[in-house]
Amino acid sequence: MASVVQRGRLAAFAVEGKRGFGLVSDRGIVDLTGRVAGLRNLKDAVEQGKLADLVEEGARRSPDHPFESVTFLPVMAEGGKIICVGVNYPDRNAEYKDGQAAPAFPSLFPRFAQSFTGHGQPLIRPKASQQLDYEGEIAIVIGKAGRHIVEADALDHIAALTLCNEGTVRDWVRHAKFNVTQGKNFDASGALGPWLVPYEGEAQIADIRLTTAVNGELRQDDRTSRMIFPFRYLIAYISTFTTLLPGDLIVTGTPTGAGARFEPPRFLVPGDVVEVAAEGIGTLINTVADEA
Amino acid sequence: MASVVQRGRLAAFAVEGKRGFGLVSDRGIVDLTGRVAGLRNLKDAVEQGKLADLVEEGARRSPDHPFESVTFLPVMAEGGKIICVGVNYPDRNAEYKDGQAAPAFPSLFPRFAQSFTGHGQPLIRPKASQQLDYEGEIAIVIGKAGRHIVEADALDHIAALTLCNEGTVRDWVRHAKFNVTQGKNFDASGALGPWLVPYEGEAQIADIRLTTAVNGELRQDDRTSRMIFPFRYLIAYISTFTTLLPGDLIVTGTPTGAGARFEPPRFLVPGDVVEVAAEGIGTLINTVADEA
Repeated sequence: MASVVQRGRLAAFAVEGKRGFGLVSDRGIVDLTGRVAGLRNLKDAVEQGKLADLVEEGARRSPDHPFESVTFLPVMAEGGKIICVGVNYPDRNAEYKDGQAAPAFPSLFPRFAQSFTGHGQPLIRPKASQQLDYEGEIAIVIGKAGRHIVEADALDHIAALTLCNEGTVRDWVRHAKFNVTQGKNFDASGALGPWLVPYEGEAQIADIRLTTAVNGELRQDDRTSRMIFPFRYLIAYISTFTTLLPGDLIVTGTPTGAGARFEPPRFLVPGDVVEVAAEGIGTLINTVADEA
Repeated sequence: MASVVQRGRLAAFAVEGKRGFGLVSDRGIVDLTGRVAGLRNLKDAVEQGKLADLVEEGARRSPDHPFESVTFLPVMAEGGKIICVGVNYPDRNAEYKDGQAAPAFPSLFPRFAQSFTGHGQPLIRPKASQQLDYEGEIAIVIGKAGRHIVEADALDHIAALTLCNEGTVRDWVRHAKFNVTQGKNFDASGALGPWLVPYEGEAQIADIRLTTAVNGELRQDDRTSRMIFPFRYLIAYISTFTTLLPGDLIVTGTPTGAGARFEPPRFLVPGDVVEVAAEGIGTLINTVADEA
């Protein structure tokens, strides 16, 4: 990968059962909970445009928590809309093998916050299915509200970036006449994280590599410059029907190579380790466990 | 309609720009905001199992606000999941004219809270389309959390009932390869209300008439006893993949007769008045206005 500047990384976590947020340094986590007035969580910081202030505050301090003492929480799962994009990298449409032409508009589906876990936590393979699958994606966090946003202004609405393992229960995706709701919303079947990286400019997202590996084997590998519906378009299109609000997430689609596309399919099993990585953002790592 | 006992009706509203909640009496609204400790809104009351307490408290008081001074807000749009059911009354599958057999499982799709307005407010026909349509539905409010709920226990998880005009922008429903997300999520294209009716027992929902009228003309008219996927089944099925939480809404599907099904289609236009009514719950009335 190209060398990239190390940017501020802001994580949500729990320590001894208490929720907090802070700056991730190379030696541990600087706890910023309660240290900046008016910020109860990272969503407050996004809404108030204070991510850069948090990074600055954190950079002045020493780590409070070693990594092994914290449990990462799904970032930005505090109640904003989570809008996922389907079929947004080349060859993904062909993978559906339904003979349909590439769609004129992006497929969109919401996920509930509770369908995600945090970095380092297990994705849960549910009792109802053996077909838990990975999908590595880049997620953008909206920082500025807007409706009918034009493409020229669209990137000004981004506050931060993160990663998503948009974990999917394949046999529940087409349970019904339309919609993928069920298969995309099993509790803790996906992950958001590992942290937020404040958005500074288009170079951070225009042409970065996005990969997913399972047990060290590269399964998905593509670049954002090849997205069918680019970031600017997605923000403009979505804002045609819904007002985007600070804290909303757009999960921007996955490259070809999910487990369902192999012959025979290669679904996730307990013990697997899935790594979703993107240049300049980080690596979201999750294990897999069966539902208790 | 059969005569029914008048049950407690709890509404969310704004008076002079301030949000509140209270009991609807025949002569106005009893303001209960701040009058029961620990209850900031109706969602708190649902989570704490205090809807009956609110009704009792309100019944002891006189109305504080005449109806003309309050703006009704969409009930229970405070951030719980909103899960809508598609194709759940007889003949609805045939209306799709896609040659597909009736599905084995219900179609589900989420709506964002901001896609709903309150009782008495206009549904917004967006700039992007001339195809705003009505869908009258009964919504159940979850009062008790659960996963893997069995049908025998399912109704114990209901805290209250309300109505939904599950307003839909038809040409945006099939914009993409799959999912109805876009056409179901235009800002203020639907309505929730007029109020919550606390759930007391199965007789309230087992076989009640559900109607939708446009400008006084009956367009939809069916009974809950004819639902393809009944209330018990829906709660059990949905809880297979997601933990239902207090405050979550399940919007249970619409009878045949939406405007799109006429030849030629009869979409809503500014000035129309849409009334969704169900026995024992109430009548949700909305006008229609163009997006500003």
